[in-house]
Amino acid sequence: MSEKKYGWLRQRFEVGPDLKLFRARFDFMKNPRNGATEKMIVLESADAVNVVARTPQGQLVFVQQYRFGLGQETIELPGGLVDAGEDIKLAAARELREETGYTGSNWQSLGKIPSNPVFQDSYIHHWLVDGVELTQNQQLDEGEAVTVLLMDEKEALQKLLQGFFQHPHTVNPLLIYFSNTQQLKI
Amino acid sequence: MSEKKYGWLRQRFEVGPDLKLFRARFDFMKNPRNGATEKMIVLESADAVNVVARTPQGQLVFVQQYRFGLGQETIELPGGLVDAGEDIKLAAARELREETGYTGSNWQSLGKIPSNPVFQDSYIHHWLVDGVELTQNQQLDEGEAVTVLLMDEKEALQKLLQGFFQHPHTVNPLLIYFSNTQQLKI
Repeated sequence: MSEKKYGWLRQRFEVGPDLKLFRARFDFMKNPRNGATEKMIVLESADAVNVVARTPQGQLVFVQQYRFGLGQETIELPGGLVDAGEDIKLAAARELREETGYTGSNWQSLGKIPSNPVFQDSYIHHWLVDGVELTQNQQLDEGEAVTVLLMDEKEALQKLLQGFFQHPHTVNPLLIYFSNTQQLKI
Repeated sequence: MSEKKYGWLRQRFEVGPDLKLFRARFDFMKNPRNGATEKMIVLESADAVNVVARTPQGQLVFVQQYRFGLGQETIELPGGLVDAGEDIKLAAARELREETGYTGSNWQSLGKIPSNPVFQDSYIHHWLVDGVELTQNQQLDEGEAVTVLLMDEKEALQKLLQGFFQHPHTVNPLLIYFSNTQQLKI
């Protein structure tokens, strides 16, 4: 990649409004192709985590909840925002425990992906934890109402390929998990 | 799904600031679990499209560009926003043509997924077009600087499984395409 070709220069920026989940920032970027300055929006937020949690019986733990953007329920992997200064793996374990009551000790990173590189500055970090058990009660935030679902991993794989999961952040770690375990292969 | 269990009620809403790509809306939602009213943010926008475009030689067409949220370059499928009133398939053909100069006639839907169900009200619609040819010049918006890349589809599949693609909206249609064509199998 050529710095010359792709060197967008930030001329200035403005702090935008507080959006609860985000702080907006406007960057005024000079396009290296034509010299035009464009106002770009960036939504600043903490990174997030989500978790492929597998029981000893080969089931995966999902959460069902109403999503306010879509205006419908979704079935997703458990997850949430990393707290300020929190270790990412501990955040994954905390979110799994709080949302589902499941805990486990055999943790492995499944990588990360930008939340949305177009306008978000954050990543979502994917984790696998194998051999989880239900050991705790849910501890939900005041703004959450979450139902826990177990799904056989073979069913989850079929649903993945059928386009069942309505959140791109759930699709990516499932793809990596099923590929890593050779349940999905070239 | 039980309406009783999941029936979040909107008490009121406020129109939020204009964010260039989005119009913000704040919904004040009553949690059916505990009766608490929470302020939720929804970013309203048009739907988007992206395209798996395959040449007769078995290469896929990608675009490389600087992404302002991430602050880095990404390699993604071509795509963009559907214009007001525009047919979704025509939007896919237009975005492919404008961003890359490639055109084709053999179009097929690969489904859609919510952009981010947590806070966006939009979908991204995935399309496949097989047998594309370079027939036009790029026609970029003033705020775009885009380089076109061709990648052998076998290499793209390997990169997909390696976590190479840094946009969740590119991962999902590639998964569906490679699964549909049995290049990725259970």
